Amino acid sequence: MTAPGALDPILNDIDRDLDNSLERLFAWLRIPSISTDPAYADRCREAAAWLEGTLTALGFETSVEETALHPVVLAHKPKPGAPHVLFYGHYDVQPVDPPELWETSPFEPRIATDADGRKRIVARGASDDKGQVLTFVEACRAHLAMAGELPVGVTILIEGAEENGSQGLPEWVAQNRERLAADVVLVCDTTMWDRGTPQITTSLRGLAYFEVKVTCADRDLHSGFFGGAAANPIHVLSRILADLHDADGRVTLPGFYDGVREPPPEVLEQWRGLGLTAESFLGPIGLKEPAGERGRLPLEMIQSRPACDVNGIIGGYTGEGTKTVIASKASAKVSFRLVDDQDPEVLARTFEAFVRERVPADCGVEVICYKGSRAVALPFDMPQLTAAQGALTEEWGRPAVAVGAGGSIPIVGDFKRILGLDSLLIGFGLDDDRIHSPNEKYDLDSFHKGTRSWARILAALGA
Amino acid sequence: MTAPGALDPILNDIDRDLDNSLERLFAWLRIPSISTDPAYADRCREAAAWLEGTLTALGFETSVEETALHPVVLAHKPKPGAPHVLFYGHYDVQPVDPPELWETSPFEPRIATDADGRKRIVARGASDDKGQVLTFVEACRAHLAMAGELPVGVTILIEGAEENGSQGLPEWVAQNRERLAADVVLVCDTTMWDRGTPQITTSLRGLAYFEVKVTCADRDLHSGFFGGAAANPIHVLSRILADLHDADGRVTLPGFYDGVREPPPEVLEQWRGLGLTAESFLGPIGLKEPAGERGRLPLEMIQSRPACDVNGIIGGYTGEGTKTVIASKASAKVSFRLVDDQDPEVLARTFEAFVRERVPADCGVEVICYKGSRAVALPFDMPQLTAAQGALTEEWGRPAVAVGAGGSIPIVGDFKRILGLDSLLIGFGLDDDRIHSPNEKYDLDSFHKGTRSWARILAALGA
Repeated sequence: MTAPGALDPILNDIDRDLDNSLERLFAWLRIPSISTDPAYADRCREAAAWLEGTLTALGFETSVEETALHPVVLAHKPKPGAPHVLFYGHYDVQPVDPPELWETSPFEPRIATDADGRKRIVARGASDDKGQVLTFVEACRAHLAMAGELPVGVTILIEGAEENGSQGLPEWVAQNRERLAADVVLVCDTTMWDRGTPQITTSLRGLAYFEVKVTCADRDLHSGFFGGAAANPIHVLSRILADLHDADGRVTLPGFYDGVREPPPEVLEQWRGLGLTAESFLGPIGLKEPAGERGRLPLEMIQSRPACDVNGIIGGYTGEGTKTVIASKASAKVSFRLVDDQDPEVLARTFEAFVRERVPADCGVEVICYKGSRAVALPFDMPQLTAAQGALTEEWGRPAVAVGAGGSIPIVGDFKRILGLDSLLIGFGLDDDRIHSPNEKYDLDSFHKGTRSWARILAALGA
Repeated sequence: MTAPGALDPILNDIDRDLDNSLERLFAWLRIPSISTDPAYADRCREAAAWLEGTLTALGFETSVEETALHPVVLAHKPKPGAPHVLFYGHYDVQPVDPPELWETSPFEPRIATDADGRKRIVARGASDDKGQVLTFVEACRAHLAMAGELPVGVTILIEGAEENGSQGLPEWVAQNRERLAADVVLVCDTTMWDRGTPQITTSLRGLAYFEVKVTCADRDLHSGFFGGAAANPIHVLSRILADLHDADGRVTLPGFYDGVREPPPEVLEQWRGLGLTAESFLGPIGLKEPAGERGRLPLEMIQSRPACDVNGIIGGYTGEGTKTVIASKASAKVSFRLVDDQDPEVLARTFEAFVRERVPADCGVEVICYKGSRAVALPFDMPQLTAAQGALTEEWGRPAVAVGAGGSIPIVGDFKRILGLDSLLIGFGLDDDRIHSPNEKYDLDSFHKGTRSWARILAALGA
């Protein structure tokens, strides 16, 4: 533990320097580094160069390095004998479409004040991810300004293609393994539990994604002439999809729950204490009743339990009005969210067998296996997790929540697979930040207390 | 019964005059009366005028009358004291797309000879329906030429919008009820059982067509964040659709089979004798096993039993590759083929209730009812049916098959509903006529023996 009060000069510096920190963030936000549009390739390079200059000025050994798409910024400040962290984020941003829905120009950042006095930084990239990246950079600045050094060795890796599927990054990471050596990865690209409660994301579900294509007759048929005798691929497909869940919302694939563990009772108790209800979770999207496994908390359903969703389906006539056709083909996209030790390769075999045994012998089926990733999870007792939780709890005055996230962040799996490193996902975004949408914002509190949080976390990790 | 040999002069005249009959048919086929393309509106009018001239020359009181789309040709030749028939057909044809697949120009009719010596008339409209219509007209010509009169009173109604959903025809029929008075309708727009076996279509299944639109969340969701907790409309829809049939292929809607009758044993025995097997029926479309009700003949499945088919489905992501989305909406088109006394209005209520009880309380569903028509069926012992069967059996040397058809022909229902008339559907097309496709043909035998068949039927109906 850092001695009480030892961090005060650093935290005070952050408070005092806030306006300058914002000026630096605004300068970065003004660069429209949209990674998915080739017309903005030079602006991506410009955003990388801005960061390179900033980190160099802070004393980092910094370089801009080429990848298959936009360059990465890599910065080092080693500290022999101390733990070493690898910080990851991204400087690229989403497109602004539709531009007419922005209240002000997306690349002219400003501070807006809500009726309740809450201030927000409005700009594309404010929350996702430039504002979040700078909370870490500004925390480093304060440490360096007041203490002359960082509490831990730090490598910073900021990519420019996250909104484009991190194209080229895994290959680059694999080629630069030694330069990324660290004890743990820190990622700042996630949200808080709520406005006042910090969160560390401790697990991410894996993913297995399939497409099922059923073919019955070798041509489309008239349902008047053949209806009642010819196999209908939409019927076959509906049966397969309906069979995937039982009446209790459980997935029926044989062995599907093998490798799924129950969390320790005290962890479950913590989750229960968070009070995420069906109403609070589903109400905002117009629903009331959880559709998942009966008897599970909503929080379990979306983070510690696996799930299956049909993501798309098409077959036959889908235009206006009517057509009396029996289609030759129908297809569906089906994905599974995986937890713990569920193996996407085993699942692929089980799923294909499950599908095939439901297809009549004279019909055909193709099962395409798109991609698979295992779940990743931190040990509940990992020391860096405990240290970061303590630091966050001190800053926010409320216990930091450690929960899983429902989705997959592929690069976190890559860090584990390629570098052997666990990632602590700590972010200060809020659910109403409108990332990927017009009028994206980042609360001034997220930026200010986020910076203070990293200052504390760095100290805690170095203690 | 007509006395043996009494028809010989008429049949001989048909044989002798065949080349001239063909010349007349070719003249009509040269007029590209495509009803769905407004660019051909004048050619439709020309085809109507050609028929008007032909029927006037035969002594019919003929007129071309306007409807909402293309005109109809109406021709009368009453015979006081004799039965009166209303003959229906259409002069309009399908578009020719794709023109490059035609071996010769679609509107330059020709006789082609197959390797086995079988001759066919190749042109758009040869089979559907100009060739079929002229079999009846040429039969009238032969009667008039040799006997100076027709055996029965005849009204001929030939429309020009059949390939366009008979647009405007039901309204025109309703406005001209008295002018269409008859004892029975004769329709020549169907096929033979096979090349050597004539067929009378004695029933047509009805149709009820619905669209089901399920809405869960009020927006598309990320399946990582919500998967396992949020209701998925494709799951809801798949359950509804899968529940529509049981493991024996029966439709599970409560009361669905109310009003469905079993055919008399001797009729069922006739059907069995026709030898329509799963292999012969499904083999040509690449299937083997009937998907309908277990224990039923294929012929029952498609004509005397009701059926349910999902005609289309769409929801979520249907493009290339993957998207981890839980859709807000999904929809399907579902239709039922009805027989006997099944009531589409009762079915609409049952179906909507069946759907609604499978939609979670916090999700929404809309059931659109597109159209409904009851089945139509001739009494098995109808005297005109017996007479026509006898005439066909004499001409072809094989018993005429009386079976139902799986599809609906709306105008037949309209004749029943508006005019109170049953329709005898007798046609000489073959399954390989490629109607609606390139290189449409009508066998020369279909045309020649079809004309002879109508000469016999007219005599039988007047006897």
